[in-house]
Amino acid sequence: MNDQEAFAIAVEEATIGYKEGGVPIGAALISRDGKLLGRGHNMRVQKGSAIHHGETAALENSGRLPASAYKGATMFTTLSPCDMCTGACILYGISRVVIGENKTFVGGEAYLKQRGIEVVVMENKEMQDLMEKFIKEKPEVWNEDIGEEERVYSKEK
Amino acid sequence: MNDQEAFAIAVEEATIGYKEGGVPIGAALISRDGKLLGRGHNMRVQKGSAIHHGETAALENSGRLPASAYKGATMFTTLSPCDMCTGACILYGISRVVIGENKTFVGGEAYLKQRGIEVVVMENKEMQDLMEKFIKEKPEVWNEDIGEEERVYSKEK
Repeated sequence: MNDQEAFAIAVEEATIGYKEGGVPIGAALISRDGKLLGRGHNMRVQKGSAIHHGETAALENSGRLPASAYKGATMFTTLSPCDMCTGACILYGISRVVIGENKTFVGGEAYLKQRGIEVVVMENKEMQDLMEKFIKEKPEVWNEDIGEEERVYSKEK
Repeated sequence: MNDQEAFAIAVEEATIGYKEGGVPIGAALISRDGKLLGRGHNMRVQKGSAIHHGETAALENSGRLPASAYKGATMFTTLSPCDMCTGACILYGISRVVIGENKTFVGGEAYLKQRGIEVVVMENKEMQDLMEKFIKEKPEVWNEDIGEEERVYSKEK
């Protein structure tokens, strides 16, 4: 599949998460030859999980894979990845991270680049609007998800 | 509890992991006032998981917590944390990471320090021996766990 089709899966996951009452962040991991390895969305609310973010959920749902499977792969995510998800992409040697938006939150983009990973930001208005809506509705859940004491809309690293 | 008691929990978790046939890395998250928040071990083999490492399993088993709960907390882990677990500790604002050993693998220690987290390495021979034994027995599982193509005993970042 192409980038637009892959990103659409991440958007679909984010939307499912929102409908479930959760943090609306979705992701899809796509192999170098354009095949879906795994997809997922943040499960903080749904599973009481501290580690199932969009990107890590997509990795988890991809199952156990050898390192070769991640080579040339792209992580599509609706929001700039937090430090944990940044580290997860680095651990597995993912080649590219395509980000829906980074207006509501800025995660480890600079560190991804520093570690040799290509970063693309789509500036997707639909995902930005969804995150803004969610943050207004459930600021305490959002703060918990990014390890913040106070309501934070953007965090520069 | 004190540091020795907390580290003993991480060792116990690593040992459980080994007995289950899994990657023998364990962790315990301890609050600033010395209480156990959560404990866990790597579940790659047991759950077919790509994200339940020792440290992330301890975070997951701690459940949903507000940012304040992680302030002043220490992550005790039997092995130098990989990039994902490094990022997880940074995300939640954990104050200190106590590492059993870093002879068999060196993860994100430098980055933890760069992000203001105190790092202590215990040079624990028992955990080093256990990891060496495991890596010799199941090199392919270990490589998969750290996203490596080849057998790697130490990875400097």
